[in-house]
Amino acid sequence: MSELSGLSEVTHLNFADAVITRVRSLGHPLCVGLDPHLDLIPALFRRGSMAAEDPATVAAVSELLEAFLDRLKGKVAIVKPQSAFFEQLGAAGIALLQQLMQRAREQGLLVLLDAKRGDIGSTAEGYARAYLDPNAPLRADALTVNPYLGLSTLAPYLERCQSHGRGVFVLVKTSNPGSADIQDLNVGGRPVFVQLAAALSEPAKQLVGPDTGWSALGVVVGATYPEQAVRVREVLPNALFLVPGYGSQGGSAKDATCAFVRGPAGLEGGLINSSRAILFPDAPGSSPSAWEKAVDAALDRAIDELGSAVSA
Amino acid sequence: MSELSGLSEVTHLNFADAVITRVRSLGHPLCVGLDPHLDLIPALFRRGSMAAEDPATVAAVSELLEAFLDRLKGKVAIVKPQSAFFEQLGAAGIALLQQLMQRAREQGLLVLLDAKRGDIGSTAEGYARAYLDPNAPLRADALTVNPYLGLSTLAPYLERCQSHGRGVFVLVKTSNPGSADIQDLNVGGRPVFVQLAAALSEPAKQLVGPDTGWSALGVVVGATYPEQAVRVREVLPNALFLVPGYGSQGGSAKDATCAFVRGPAGLEGGLINSSRAILFPDAPGSSPSAWEKAVDAALDRAIDELGSAVSA
Repeated sequence: MSELSGLSEVTHLNFADAVITRVRSLGHPLCVGLDPHLDLIPALFRRGSMAAEDPATVAAVSELLEAFLDRLKGKVAIVKPQSAFFEQLGAAGIALLQQLMQRAREQGLLVLLDAKRGDIGSTAEGYARAYLDPNAPLRADALTVNPYLGLSTLAPYLERCQSHGRGVFVLVKTSNPGSADIQDLNVGGRPVFVQLAAALSEPAKQLVGPDTGWSALGVVVGATYPEQAVRVREVLPNALFLVPGYGSQGGSAKDATCAFVRGPAGLEGGLINSSRAILFPDAPGSSPSAWEKAVDAALDRAIDELGSAVSA
Repeated sequence: MSELSGLSEVTHLNFADAVITRVRSLGHPLCVGLDPHLDLIPALFRRGSMAAEDPATVAAVSELLEAFLDRLKGKVAIVKPQSAFFEQLGAAGIALLQQLMQRAREQGLLVLLDAKRGDIGSTAEGYARAYLDPNAPLRADALTVNPYLGLSTLAPYLERCQSHGRGVFVLVKTSNPGSADIQDLNVGGRPVFVQLAAALSEPAKQLVGPDTGWSALGVVVGATYPEQAVRVREVLPNALFLVPGYGSQGGSAKDATCAFVRGPAGLEGGLINSSRAILFPDAPGSSPSAWEKAVDAALDRAIDELGSAVSA
């Protein structure tokens, strides 16, 4: 594969330093997903038809997510809004996403926008500007990106890692069974995802944070594929892993941390995402206080389980 | 690769029929890209700082694009807004995109949203709902999608092709040099993009329109790689090609139509996109009428060139 070039020295602002410092102090790597599935919104918050085009729906989602963010404050390092669920609400949904990202940051939470963007040239530059520039209306701290269009298309995001302390997570081996279709294709004895990981090794080194030794160039590696995660870790020793698939998709805490390594406060090296199990606990109750208790219990359970896994 | 299943009979509404019928009647396959690069907006339309976060910027882009759509009416079959350039303007940019797509449809233009989305499970479903469902605020007629996460992740889009007459264009071989990094990797003697195209052949057959014989499952194949386009055509005889890279990226009209085949009104089989050369003609003038003339001339030039290429 071709090489990414043109990255010069890393500045002091480094996304990996920011997130890993918080993770160490909290004692767990939980990232909480904000995926407002309309079908799963509890009765307490539902308004009107709950159809995507009904303005009352945006108000319902907004109320749910604001109350939810209040439960997370001080307990997790980072939240991950899933762009699709806001896009389906149209422009009003994006206005909500914009407010939500701002509110999360005001509450001291880092924001990783899960948008899996990928395009070429000036369009890739447009996506980087949209989500990683300091004055961008939809500014996030980090973004997930898709590498299918080639390594050089990642350059605009990596530049923002360097100049503005942002983070990027490149899709490498995703948590779904269908991920094999392209990611596992055999290229001269190695699957595509290992080939890709190897090609990311140089730029990852260039984005290592001075405080923690972790890189602002991260990768997405599903908790459902622990063996593959270990192979990616071999070629990317400094890359943060964003690990989806823990909890609802069947990955255990042990699987999710299998590519973590010993650090000053336990095993570290990534963020483990849980969305539905926390935002939509099984018995959400019918009063605000019952709902708060249900969310707190689901959150504490994930924190305890992941905290134990990394301190083991 | 695994197979996509669960698609039953095609309904009478078929995106390929809709677009190819228009293309035949107009005599050219031009698709006009709506990529409002802020740096390229002509003086006539500029307002304020033109920074992404300045509200005056959205007004300027809106005025430009509305005036531009008026020039296209009745002359082209389809327009292709590039989502990144609206996303960089935040929620106000998405509100503009929403209005613009509606206005284009009211003017009889089909709308292909270039968003290159790709995700798994319920998130893929969210993207399909966001852009292809009948009541979606951001409803388009067709969407570009990224296949890196696997073929089964395309199912929600293909379902909308079948049930709502929508179209989908899967990224196969993109127009940028870096596209080789993953798309050209050799898998048992065939590049990844050919392997992918072959895997799309069954679902493409299932989405063939009764009127024209073309499929609502299309593929993106850059005009800069004519030989590769011919290989993709061999395995996907019915797939519409969305061909970027004509004009500003160096692909000629001949290259762009190299995988077209003889139809009742000349060579056909795809849409050839031009964005910058038409939206931002070289000498845009300093009065509204001069700007209109410059846009009309650029538009007519592309129409003539592509019309000649397909009638040759």
